[in-house]
Amino acid sequence: MRPQAMRAGALDLADLRELIDTALAAFLCSPSSRVPTQRRRVGGGRDPDRTLASYVLAPGERVGPLLCLLGWYAAGGGRDGKGEEAAVRLAASLELLHAFTLIHDDIADENDGRRGAPGAHRAFAVRHRERAAPDTSGRNSAVLLGDLALVRCDEMLHSAGFTHRQYRVLLPLVDTLRNEVVLGQYLDARTAGPPGADVALASRVVRLRTARYAVERPLRLGAVLAGAGARTLEACSAYALPLGEAFRLRDDLRGTFGDPAVTGQPVAEDLRSGRATVLMALAVRRASRSQARLLRRFVGDPDLDARGAAAVRRVLEETGARETVEKMITARYEAALAALERAPFVPRAADALRRVAADAAARPV
Amino acid sequence: MRPQAMRAGALDLADLRELIDTALAAFLCSPSSRVPTQRRRVGGGRDPDRTLASYVLAPGERVGPLLCLLGWYAAGGGRDGKGEEAAVRLAASLELLHAFTLIHDDIADENDGRRGAPGAHRAFAVRHRERAAPDTSGRNSAVLLGDLALVRCDEMLHSAGFTHRQYRVLLPLVDTLRNEVVLGQYLDARTAGPPGADVALASRVVRLRTARYAVERPLRLGAVLAGAGARTLEACSAYALPLGEAFRLRDDLRGTFGDPAVTGQPVAEDLRSGRATVLMALAVRRASRSQARLLRRFVGDPDLDARGAAAVRRVLEETGARETVEKMITARYEAALAALERAPFVPRAADALRRVAADAAARPV
Repeated sequence: MRPQAMRAGALDLADLRELIDTALAAFLCSPSSRVPTQRRRVGGGRDPDRTLASYVLAPGERVGPLLCLLGWYAAGGGRDGKGEEAAVRLAASLELLHAFTLIHDDIADENDGRRGAPGAHRAFAVRHRERAAPDTSGRNSAVLLGDLALVRCDEMLHSAGFTHRQYRVLLPLVDTLRNEVVLGQYLDARTAGPPGADVALASRVVRLRTARYAVERPLRLGAVLAGAGARTLEACSAYALPLGEAFRLRDDLRGTFGDPAVTGQPVAEDLRSGRATVLMALAVRRASRSQARLLRRFVGDPDLDARGAAAVRRVLEETGARETVEKMITARYEAALAALERAPFVPRAADALRRVAADAAARPV
Repeated sequence: MRPQAMRAGALDLADLRELIDTALAAFLCSPSSRVPTQRRRVGGGRDPDRTLASYVLAPGERVGPLLCLLGWYAAGGGRDGKGEEAAVRLAASLELLHAFTLIHDDIADENDGRRGAPGAHRAFAVRHRERAAPDTSGRNSAVLLGDLALVRCDEMLHSAGFTHRQYRVLLPLVDTLRNEVVLGQYLDARTAGPPGADVALASRVVRLRTARYAVERPLRLGAVLAGAGARTLEACSAYALPLGEAFRLRDDLRGTFGDPAVTGQPVAEDLRSGRATVLMALAVRRASRSQARLLRRFVGDPDLDARGAAAVRRVLEETGARETVEKMITARYEAALAALERAPFVPRAADALRRVAADAAARPV
């Protein structure tokens, strides 16, 4: 039986997510046929493959994979009833790339929670609590878990059954994406520290870290798999870049003003880590002398408490930084929708992309 | 002008290393054509690509790449004067995989030096000494540098210009190798801690960590690229596995008894970290009650001093563990040479492989 999403008619986002998760589960949970003996004989402790499977299969938005599949449909993929499996595998492999990024990011950020669950290094630290140095041991295991995610991402891609032409076109794009991901992490690391007023730098981080990586590249990858031409690919970027920026700007607001119970993210983490967001850069640029003093005192302080966080939030409101970011989100959402109107996409895929944009713009702070 | 190594006649190991380093330098030092703008605009600090290039191009033995190239020659590669470039690229990409492994390993081991130079995380810590937490910052940068090495390893492979058949056959083998590498790191982590008597477990680590990864897989990869059949591939393993074990066992002796000025490795590091070597497992199994007490007290102690290390070394000698390991090395060296006699290899490649084995067996402790 072919899944609902694959038949003609509306593309249901939940169905597409289901397809992706099923492919991931099939790939991650069946023991690798290639290194079975050693894996089984690691002895004691949990199989790293199984740990990775639990991590990856935890509930998530699957933004990248979803956009990749939609890019494939948008460019006419599946019209001949063929190639769905390769498209789903390509899409699902992006979730493994994402896991790699999250796991290593969380170590660098000393981020203890994400999606309402502890970061991998924290989970390992708890599991290793009887060892001499559980934190170090947990961190080291998380480095390896992230490595494994990237290695298995490759494996999933290499075994997707692409044609030679598809490999020749797709693999360089995947490599570019990965280079950008790692470079984005460097940028993030470089921009940590005392709050700066460099809105341009913060915007560049947004573009690289989310717009490109999480939205534009996946959408274009899917379209390329379907054999998209230049016009379709340009339309992908015209839709994806503003949407991706809206997405990240919204995340920045959620990370600072959101209710952890709703967002699943520890609030004030961005303030504690001093991450260079557009929100913060705007506030620093517009701050009065006393506001600037307050920001320098509290932002980037790992021990920031609720009162300090509230004071920083007041400055973000008083300088109008929050309002400006809200306006930036709206402008980008509208730009994405306008791009969709002009895009030469298959209509039901364009409809689905419209829903993705609406979801992104409407997510509660 | 074609390089010396490529002409008919003897294969000079130094020439082959030169070929590999030239390919690595060309790939790593020319700015990536794909993400040039962002890379150049990271602003301040050093370009991560350039940091990776200095790390990878530091002097080294290039064991994996060398064996990969020799596997290609051994299976008849280059006889038609074609395909050298792809073979060299495949070989060179293994050095990037190796860099990835070393960099992440050194973080886990808190290993401060290797090849006489500081580990990447230490080098970064020194460079970041004016930041709030240079050690953390250095470690985080090193995680990213290792990630970049793996990402660029892929890129080098994907752009090597293989035929579709070569891709289809090679990529799954590369994926298996990478899975084994990460799994081997897990095994290493799992076996750290108080000294154990499990010689079988220690031997498994040896096989996975060095014999497979550094010797057998590279040799077979090169042979597969040349289109080797089953008999040639079996001969590769018959030569490579014992040689790889000899290699690692020798390394264990060097790490414990060697002169740091000669080996470039910090001596007693294995003792400090409590790494589960065959050497140590043999000693634990044969130890008297008082010797066992001494081992439990000193092995795995991060603050182990010269006197403690000397006491442990005495136990390794008195129990005959060192002598047994020396005998194991000799037996494996002879097995590798015997396998070469029977191997259906191109003679000048077999000659070169004989020289590689002799070098490995003769390296000073």
